[in-house]
Amino acid sequence: MTTGEAARREAPAGGHAPVALPDEETFAALDARWRAANYLSVGQIYLLANPLLREPLRPEHIKPRLLGHWGTTPGLNLVHAHLDRAIVERDLDALAVWGPGHGGPAPLANSWLDGSYTETYPDVTRDAAGMARLFKQFSFPGGVPSHVAPETPGSIHEGGELGYSLAHAYGAACDNPNLLVACVIGDGEAETGPLAASWHANKFLDPVHDGAVLPILHLNGYKIANPTVLARIPEPELDQFLRGVGHDPLYVAGDEPAVVHRELAAALDTALDRIADVWWAARHQGVRARPRWPLIVLRTPKGFTGPAEVDGLPVEGTWRAHQIPLADPRGNPAHLAELEKWLRSYRPEELFDEEGGPTAAVLSGLPTGERRLGANPHANGGLLLRALPLPALEECAVEVASPGAGSHEPTKVLGGLLARVMAATAERRDFRLVGPDETASNRLQDVYRATEKTWQTAILPVDEHLSHEGRVMEVLSEHLCQGWLEGYLLTGRHGMFSSYEAFAHIVGSMANQHVKWLRTARRLPWRRPVASLNYLLTSHVWRQDHNGFSHQDPGFVDQVLNKAPEVVRVYLPPDTNTLLAVADHVLRSRDYVNVVVAGKQPCYDWLDLEAARAHCAAGAGIWEWAGTEGSAGGGGAGGGEPDVVLGCAGDVPTQEVLAAADLLRRHLPELAVRVVNVVDIARLMAPEDHPHGMSDRDYHALFTRDRPVIFAYHGYPWLIHRLTFHRDNHPQLHVRGYLEEGSTTTPFDMVVRNDLDRYRLVMDVIDRVPGLAVRAARLRQRMAEARFRHGRWVTEHGTDLPEVADWRWGAL
Amino acid sequence: MTTGEAARREAPAGGHAPVALPDEETFAALDARWRAANYLSVGQIYLLANPLLREPLRPEHIKPRLLGHWGTTPGLNLVHAHLDRAIVERDLDALAVWGPGHGGPAPLANSWLDGSYTETYPDVTRDAAGMARLFKQFSFPGGVPSHVAPETPGSIHEGGELGYSLAHAYGAACDNPNLLVACVIGDGEAETGPLAASWHANKFLDPVHDGAVLPILHLNGYKIANPTVLARIPEPELDQFLRGVGHDPLYVAGDEPAVVHRELAAALDTALDRIADVWWAARHQGVRARPRWPLIVLRTPKGFTGPAEVDGLPVEGTWRAHQIPLADPRGNPAHLAELEKWLRSYRPEELFDEEGGPTAAVLSGLPTGERRLGANPHANGGLLLRALPLPALEECAVEVASPGAGSHEPTKVLGGLLARVMAATAERRDFRLVGPDETASNRLQDVYRATEKTWQTAILPVDEHLSHEGRVMEVLSEHLCQGWLEGYLLTGRHGMFSSYEAFAHIVGSMANQHVKWLRTARRLPWRRPVASLNYLLTSHVWRQDHNGFSHQDPGFVDQVLNKAPEVVRVYLPPDTNTLLAVADHVLRSRDYVNVVVAGKQPCYDWLDLEAARAHCAAGAGIWEWAGTEGSAGGGGAGGGEPDVVLGCAGDVPTQEVLAAADLLRRHLPELAVRVVNVVDIARLMAPEDHPHGMSDRDYHALFTRDRPVIFAYHGYPWLIHRLTFHRDNHPQLHVRGYLEEGSTTTPFDMVVRNDLDRYRLVMDVIDRVPGLAVRAARLRQRMAEARFRHGRWVTEHGTDLPEVADWRWGAL
Repeated sequence: MTTGEAARREAPAGGHAPVALPDEETFAALDARWRAANYLSVGQIYLLANPLLREPLRPEHIKPRLLGHWGTTPGLNLVHAHLDRAIVERDLDALAVWGPGHGGPAPLANSWLDGSYTETYPDVTRDAAGMARLFKQFSFPGGVPSHVAPETPGSIHEGGELGYSLAHAYGAACDNPNLLVACVIGDGEAETGPLAASWHANKFLDPVHDGAVLPILHLNGYKIANPTVLARIPEPELDQFLRGVGHDPLYVAGDEPAVVHRELAAALDTALDRIADVWWAARHQGVRARPRWPLIVLRTPKGFTGPAEVDGLPVEGTWRAHQIPLADPRGNPAHLAELEKWLRSYRPEELFDEEGGPTAAVLSGLPTGERRLGANPHANGGLLLRALPLPALEECAVEVASPGAGSHEPTKVLGGLLARVMAATAERRDFRLVGPDETASNRLQDVYRATEKTWQTAILPVDEHLSHEGRVMEVLSEHLCQGWLEGYLLTGRHGMFSSYEAFAHIVGSMANQHVKWLRTARRLPWRRPVASLNYLLTSHVWRQDHNGFSHQDPGFVDQVLNKAPEVVRVYLPPDTNTLLAVADHVLRSRDYVNVVVAGKQPCYDWLDLEAARAHCAAGAGIWEWAGTEGSAGGGGAGGGEPDVVLGCAGDVPTQEVLAAADLLRRHLPELAVRVVNVVDIARLMAPEDHPHGMSDRDYHALFTRDRPVIFAYHGYPWLIHRLTFHRDNHPQLHVRGYLEEGSTTTPFDMVVRNDLDRYRLVMDVIDRVPGLAVRAARLRQRMAEARFRHGRWVTEHGTDLPEVADWRWGAL
Repeated sequence: MTTGEAARREAPAGGHAPVALPDEETFAALDARWRAANYLSVGQIYLLANPLLREPLRPEHIKPRLLGHWGTTPGLNLVHAHLDRAIVERDLDALAVWGPGHGGPAPLANSWLDGSYTETYPDVTRDAAGMARLFKQFSFPGGVPSHVAPETPGSIHEGGELGYSLAHAYGAACDNPNLLVACVIGDGEAETGPLAASWHANKFLDPVHDGAVLPILHLNGYKIANPTVLARIPEPELDQFLRGVGHDPLYVAGDEPAVVHRELAAALDTALDRIADVWWAARHQGVRARPRWPLIVLRTPKGFTGPAEVDGLPVEGTWRAHQIPLADPRGNPAHLAELEKWLRSYRPEELFDEEGGPTAAVLSGLPTGERRLGANPHANGGLLLRALPLPALEECAVEVASPGAGSHEPTKVLGGLLARVMAATAERRDFRLVGPDETASNRLQDVYRATEKTWQTAILPVDEHLSHEGRVMEVLSEHLCQGWLEGYLLTGRHGMFSSYEAFAHIVGSMANQHVKWLRTARRLPWRRPVASLNYLLTSHVWRQDHNGFSHQDPGFVDQVLNKAPEVVRVYLPPDTNTLLAVADHVLRSRDYVNVVVAGKQPCYDWLDLEAARAHCAAGAGIWEWAGTEGSAGGGGAGGGEPDVVLGCAGDVPTQEVLAAADLLRRHLPELAVRVVNVVDIARLMAPEDHPHGMSDRDYHALFTRDRPVIFAYHGYPWLIHRLTFHRDNHPQLHVRGYLEEGSTTTPFDMVVRNDLDRYRLVMDVIDRVPGLAVRAARLRQRMAEARFRHGRWVTEHGTDLPEVADWRWGAL
């Protein structure tokens, strides 16, 4: 018995060793399934009626508007048919990621063939009426997208924006030791940066605890208008490239279906045998060396089996096959005849029975139940999701004797919480932390008490916190981090992405697409809720003391808040315990994209755990102890409306507002000042604009109906205006925030340069409260002097102000 | 004479053939320059005073706060010294791109050594006083960033956000046939997606018309906290990878300076010889095969020549050398002693003379004048910039007999303009068009009348518009497109990036960083203005009929408008001639990021060229012919205030507003309706918030002070609120825009689903003009019925409404 055979017998991936190449009957069945799927794909693109060609094709059978992508589709159908064979023969638990997702007809066709489509959408029955419906709905108003999408059974990967397939595949494979993730990568997609970075994800995949990814690089040679790079370089160069990224490639090439079937079947068997060997060696023989995972290169013509020529120009095998090979069968009789010939070339009479369902020849050898690619529960991860075992926050919280008496690094304390989650999931392995080389830089290093960073290449004595089985994933590619996490979450697990705030923009487009996925999935009853995608944005704009201007950007929040409100949530916890309360909430939540902005630098503790929980649950609230409402005898105390409201959101703005309130209380004791802190920024919105939006009544209870509001915000000030423009007292609202000023400088100088400092806020109050301008002119002058004096000190000495650095709550 | 020798003699890169390895004297000079640069680098990180160590180092000589990155710096200094030698020996025209840009001390040190720093910043003299200033300013408040930045002489590449060095290098090399661009790539940066995609840029570099890029992959082994992937994979695997991406690698490795000097000098000579051979073969021997360009792998310890151990832990050669190897020399006497030892190990007494300037030993063999890397004019591209030869718009404009009488595809007509620019620059070669495989899909294909797409790998008979020397650059990587264009523009040329609107978000972070670069460069008097970065965002949100939800995203504009207002400009031309007028303007502009949003689908022509020019120059204006102001006897005609203003920005919203105005004129003839179209969206802002902002007086002249304004906007509606919240009539402003609704559907259904359609706009008018609700109740009901009826038609028939598709201005 060879190792391979042993592995096949014992490794989780399969128990059925293929003894040799499949027999002729199997190939005939394979080909029948491929022809059926191709027929159904062409039908989706073209046909409005007459789905089975029971009558001659007429113009009125053709859709009035032809939309979709044929070019990549037959290749996807081919891979699907061969995966089906392997799944059955080896009883594989397999998931497919279709990188060339524009080929939406392919998984739809296959899912309809194996019955999973009808189970998901009962009105699309597996008969002639259902086939007609399948055809009509494709890329039709009110129907289904032309790409692989959330609506597609069996998919975790939207096929619209390209580049993320391989990262998604690796994310899905992590901590799924029995799962095979077959990932078709288009040669167009392979030119994208995220895909190019993802080739190296194999250096992070643990053959013991993770499943396998089988990349299938589909070289059909063309994008929409150009040849592709990887298809045009000489094959020896391609081979070097694929070996260079750590794979052991297997090649399949041809334009003769029979030849391609044989080669692909052999390559797939070889690849699966090798994976089984790798698993066996790693799991039973203690082999720790990084395996050279197999990879299949599939070189077939674009639009394989479609029209070779149209109007005298070559189509099959060229970029002209990308979308609609026959442009006008409704208006052009020659096109119509060609289309009918094309459809009949698949011999539908052999593929579909009298009722229009697949014949036994097509059905034979298809997987059943959850083994079907369209029904694998990993692709509907909410089915597998378990609640995360979260610790009691009391174990992690910091003690706060009085507001501002002590300080902590919020993310460092959060690291303790995450360490507990890591420890509690050590066996379950369903929680991961991803980030670009910054987990420790972002002060989350306590998590290494419970796990380490996954690393499958050499580990040297000098290395720290690296291991084969770690569940922290660090690579200097935000794209790969995001892709990993998306794949991990969509297959039913939990995680968090920590990033420098500014560089979250690198994955802005991916975040947009994930929100779109969740927005659409939430509207599909069969998609079960998955864990939220949680961003921890730290090393934020106000504390880029040494990195300067290039590292300052608080705009990710603005971008996220443009997206579907049912999905997006933004939190700005002002201190350590509020960060814990927010983290606890977001880690329990489902189907959201949560953005948490929190600092890693020492930050005064304002709220004890109980207060933090209550404050975060409310999302926004009056801090009575910080304004005059909390001080006996303070101006305006006694429940009346304040003279001015100081609003704040974010740790640094909160600190400056509290300092300003303190200055006001001491220097203008007769002024009634209210401090309102906002953690959940969407609370500022109207209830009809966001589920967390506050009613006008609640808003007025915090911000008053007519008093001046000075709002210090962490990011771009106009965000606060756009969230509140409809409120009655909006004309009274004056927002301070980041203005793209300041570079390499001190934290205090940053707030001065952006007009967010305590002195400026006091001046704002004096300028905006009626009657104060004259009465407090001298104080205003002193504040302006303090700004100037402190600014000069900072520039000369290169450190923060002693009196600012040492600033204590109530003791300025 | 070998080919190499011939090339060296005749090819542009250099006339001086190195006869053999440099002699000992040259190596001594190389080492002295390296030591001097290292000394100056450590000094920048640590020293506030005592720059020449003329007295023993004391705590007060140390900066109070230590910021910067030592780890990568000695490697950059090493490369710089060796490039200097090659530049002098071969009289090279060379530009350096420092990918590991956190090592800012390195180019600063070298620029100070060769005098280019003092020429740029005369107060930083090349003597002891200047050295003290150089040291103090580094990463100090009011000083210079710790990264390579716009402030750094000789740089076109910000070193903060990583991943773009190689793309920038290729962009700089394009159409600079005599330029060598040496690009140091950090092994951390190499993990990013954009860098990974950029490896394949060599398939687009024409050895005849373009210069050369010499990648120097610097494997120092570690990022901030982890080993790097490329440094840890076995060398044979790395070699396969580098050959697989098309390079012929040369290896330099060691931790002995003398050995490294010899190996690097030899590798650099070999690489430059090979480049000269490639150029010779391509330019004089007609060789058309894609060359295998050389590449240098430089494997040296992280923090080379720094402390080997600190506090008993290894530092040199580990991630601990990443930032500040000795953490506390001000407070810890052992650290102070170690720092002094470290500094003195460079033997400063040999490197700097009595006055503190470099000694002859250091200066010998340094390049002079514009050959210095800190003074090469390509790195200050505005010095080389020539105005683009733009055609008279009359050559391209469409005739407009009356508004709405005809229609054109705006971007298709723009393609004619771009073709003329391409033709006019055929010899100068200073204009390029980049895009991800979409130039033709975005209807710009007329540009192929004048040039083709660059492609250096095999070209087959079936291919169209590919050539070795084309100036359209297509690759399915937005990152590479953007990086190419940035590098091209910053070296003094012109260009445009056309993209599907939604996928501009992929390069959102790069756009942010480019705005930051321009904002900072504009504040540096020595940086000459460069051509603007022009985005053409087309295939926009309203016309994703077959791609659906994943391809809808108008948020790039919002992101850009968060950035420095002195740099960002956003235009939404409503038809063909306005697009031409805008394109003409942005192609003439300097130092901006211009975002132009325009459709590719047939769009009614509203303005003739003269009117389009005037309208675009104004940025916003009343279209009297569209409202009742233009119709004799129309309601409110005669110059009074209208009853309602219909605002619009964007092609589809403009069409719907004009249709709504038409409905109102016919059904409510007594109503005075004004139509205001906005092309330059920043006109809505206040003058203090954006240079294009309108005064309140001008704003009121368009939008009135108190009448209801119904504004139909192309993107997210709240953008309009955030731009106008301070205007007097803001409470009267009602904005319609994209609400993340609609997927695969018809264009008309898209506007219905997002409440932007003509019927909804009429209903909005009825709802908001006082007194109309009752008077026009029946019309409102008819409008609601029309929405419903048309919606049903669309869903059933899968095409656009006949009466909408056929809609003509004034003939509904």
